[in-house]
Amino acid sequence: MSDAPRFELFAFWRTSATYRVRVAMNLKGLAAAETQVNLIEGQQHDPAFLKLNPMAAIPALLDHAAGAPGTALTQSLAILEFLEEVAPAPALLPSDPYARARVRSLSLLLAADTHPFITPRVRKRLAQMPGFDDAAWKDWQTHWITTGLQGLERRLAEPGTGRFCHGDTPGMADICLASIIVVMRVFKIEVAGIPTVERIMAACEALPAFAQADPMRQAGAPG
Amino acid sequence: MSDAPRFELFAFWRTSATYRVRVAMNLKGLAAAETQVNLIEGQQHDPAFLKLNPMAAIPALLDHAAGAPGTALTQSLAILEFLEEVAPAPALLPSDPYARARVRSLSLLLAADTHPFITPRVRKRLAQMPGFDDAAWKDWQTHWITTGLQGLERRLAEPGTGRFCHGDTPGMADICLASIIVVMRVFKIEVAGIPTVERIMAACEALPAFAQADPMRQAGAPG
Repeated sequence: MSDAPRFELFAFWRTSATYRVRVAMNLKGLAAAETQVNLIEGQQHDPAFLKLNPMAAIPALLDHAAGAPGTALTQSLAILEFLEEVAPAPALLPSDPYARARVRSLSLLLAADTHPFITPRVRKRLAQMPGFDDAAWKDWQTHWITTGLQGLERRLAEPGTGRFCHGDTPGMADICLASIIVVMRVFKIEVAGIPTVERIMAACEALPAFAQADPMRQAGAPG
Repeated sequence: MSDAPRFELFAFWRTSATYRVRVAMNLKGLAAAETQVNLIEGQQHDPAFLKLNPMAAIPALLDHAAGAPGTALTQSLAILEFLEEVAPAPALLPSDPYARARVRSLSLLLAADTHPFITPRVRKRLAQMPGFDDAAWKDWQTHWITTGLQGLERRLAEPGTGRFCHGDTPGMADICLASIIVVMRVFKIEVAGIPTVERIMAACEALPAFAQADPMRQAGAPG
């Protein structure tokens, strides 16, 4: 047990929110033992997992250094903030409070105001509506991803943007940006008019921390 | 100018996210000059406001002590984190990192995974679907508010819950909880099976910081 990694991440290869945690841990040089929770097979509803996260969702993270906390850490942005506090370097947030707020706001624009709309639980609810089919789902996904990324593009015209969303080092907002792009690719959705977003995504993908977290490179991904 | 309050909050009486910022500032004893942005009249699209927030959304906060930042702080949770950093007492987050992550996770369960679904922009998009009417909208709102609050109720069975969502002092998660309840009342939606949520809401409303932020008590609210 003493040789086990400090962190245990409950994960599934293709989820956007799990990708965020993987990138953050990679950037900070933290290792996690991954336990796969196969969402297609419904493993998130197993009683043992529900004890860790009653919301039946991933990512979920255990920090064994925190003792036996009983429940796992959940919600990707809360996990990123946690990692930032227990392993501050390299930082995912700038040091100035106003700049930190900008990065958090850009992150929430994607993680709170964009990504939730395109999750399976929303598709399930929409499918109850008359005539809702695969084409309607693709239109819905496209609408929200386009709204989110074009909104981000406008905000990246603000002062503060550099090689990455804020300054010249990758941080929380870049992780959220990339987490939307990787999902967009899985769904084969295209968005026009986002040159700054695309430039930053290319800068992210040039870094091993991002490249190694790519959904298609994870355990369980289709070959 | 020197007598003007440090903070300028762009607000509208009934929005849930603005309520969160009002409560946080009240708890911390911070005063803000409020500028009303009438969302019904479309004032969020005025060019002067778009310069402050290209996302055409409120809340938006200017901290004049931060110089002339050009753009406002946006996204309620990013603003709460900012206020926590520039005015740490009384704290909206506990001191222990694992506990902080729990409070942030509960907050995101509501602010990211519940509230975005019931916003006007979602209603506007849903209205494009065949047969989508007022009753379908109320069903949709009820589904997501119920899912969110019953999920919160399950999580409040975790260790850590006290008089409030975490411990015995009000914090970020309580602010998010109350922000959903006040909106639920505006929409006349009822949710069963949430006794702990209701107990905590009562504890919140006993505090002037919450009571004074009630949407019905704001400038512009119906008489």
